[in-house]
Amino acid sequence: MFLIWGHEDRLLKKKPLPVDQIRRFLEPGPIVLVSSAYRGSRNIMTMGWHMVMEFQPSLIGCYIWSANHSFELIRKSRECVINIPEVKLALKVVDIGNTSGRDIDKFEEFGLTAERGRQVKAPLIAECFANYECRLVDSRLIRKYSLFVLEVVAARVAVAPKFPATIHYRGDGVFMLSGKNTARYRPRFRPEML
Amino acid sequence: MFLIWGHEDRLLKKKPLPVDQIRRFLEPGPIVLVSSAYRGSRNIMTMGWHMVMEFQPSLIGCYIWSANHSFELIRKSRECVINIPEVKLALKVVDIGNTSGRDIDKFEEFGLTAERGRQVKAPLIAECFANYECRLVDSRLIRKYSLFVLEVVAARVAVAPKFPATIHYRGDGVFMLSGKNTARYRPRFRPEML
Repeated sequence: MFLIWGHEDRLLKKKPLPVDQIRRFLEPGPIVLVSSAYRGSRNIMTMGWHMVMEFQPSLIGCYIWSANHSFELIRKSRECVINIPEVKLALKVVDIGNTSGRDIDKFEEFGLTAERGRQVKAPLIAECFANYECRLVDSRLIRKYSLFVLEVVAARVAVAPKFPATIHYRGDGVFMLSGKNTARYRPRFRPEML
Repeated sequence: MFLIWGHEDRLLKKKPLPVDQIRRFLEPGPIVLVSSAYRGSRNIMTMGWHMVMEFQPSLIGCYIWSANHSFELIRKSRECVINIPEVKLALKVVDIGNTSGRDIDKFEEFGLTAERGRQVKAPLIAECFANYECRLVDSRLIRKYSLFVLEVVAARVAVAPKFPATIHYRGDGVFMLSGKNTARYRPRFRPEML
């Protein structure tokens, strides 16, 4: 039974997500896992500092500290994948953030499945409900702000549930878990604001 | 009774928050209200695209569209306040995002109280549980990315509750409401990561 669960867990059924709609899961501010690879080395890092920057092209800004092992993998390969984990992966997310890819292969250590991307060579994390394949399109802000400007070039998301529960970090070891969704304010929007 | 409630509501008791701890309320990704003023004109805008960029100095990056009335107020005054609203202000947050400061004074229109700041001339919104007074410290990314790099120079937060319920936007009129907090993963952190 455990194996079957694990098996199903890895084979989340996914569908393509238009890249101009990636805000749906990223804008609420969840902790994400960033996967990358360069010359035979691969890694996963936990990331909390990110923002949507544009719809078309679909841009994301994110802060990656130069001390992170992933920093050079992403800077040199100019690619990465932003994977959004559900609450049930919280323990792994914490442990990934408290270990270094210099010492371990995090895919192996944490039993995560590297999946081939459509547009980038960096591996996707199959167990995450959303995978955004990204290219580094502006590296000029890395030196001053550790700010990577990424373009989402392909995206996939689990077919169900519509909005998986996510984890949001407050610092100091405290996480906020996502609550219910509401669209009851939608009628108050001007059409062009939707 | 209604008046007393309204009165108390406006007089949220607040305490100073060290500027290097502002992530506690901002990093989980809530929708915020940005207030600003320039030469006798003041405004409030609803903002969802922001990120923590540094602890010391305490930097925040945020996207402000050039079509927003607030864009020039902030660019010219080089100041603003990031105010974090609770769920109970959700309707006002939506309506503020769907009206323009060119047509109305949003403080008056939405019955919000402008409070004097300690470090900036831009008004704080008294009804919001957290107020981050910001200075624009880097305007070089505005033209290309509409990205304002702000330094938080003073911050205040309500004394209770410890973590007010916040609203998080998904686009398309759908909001996620913040859920419960958990610190049960804290023991798994390396001390230097807290």
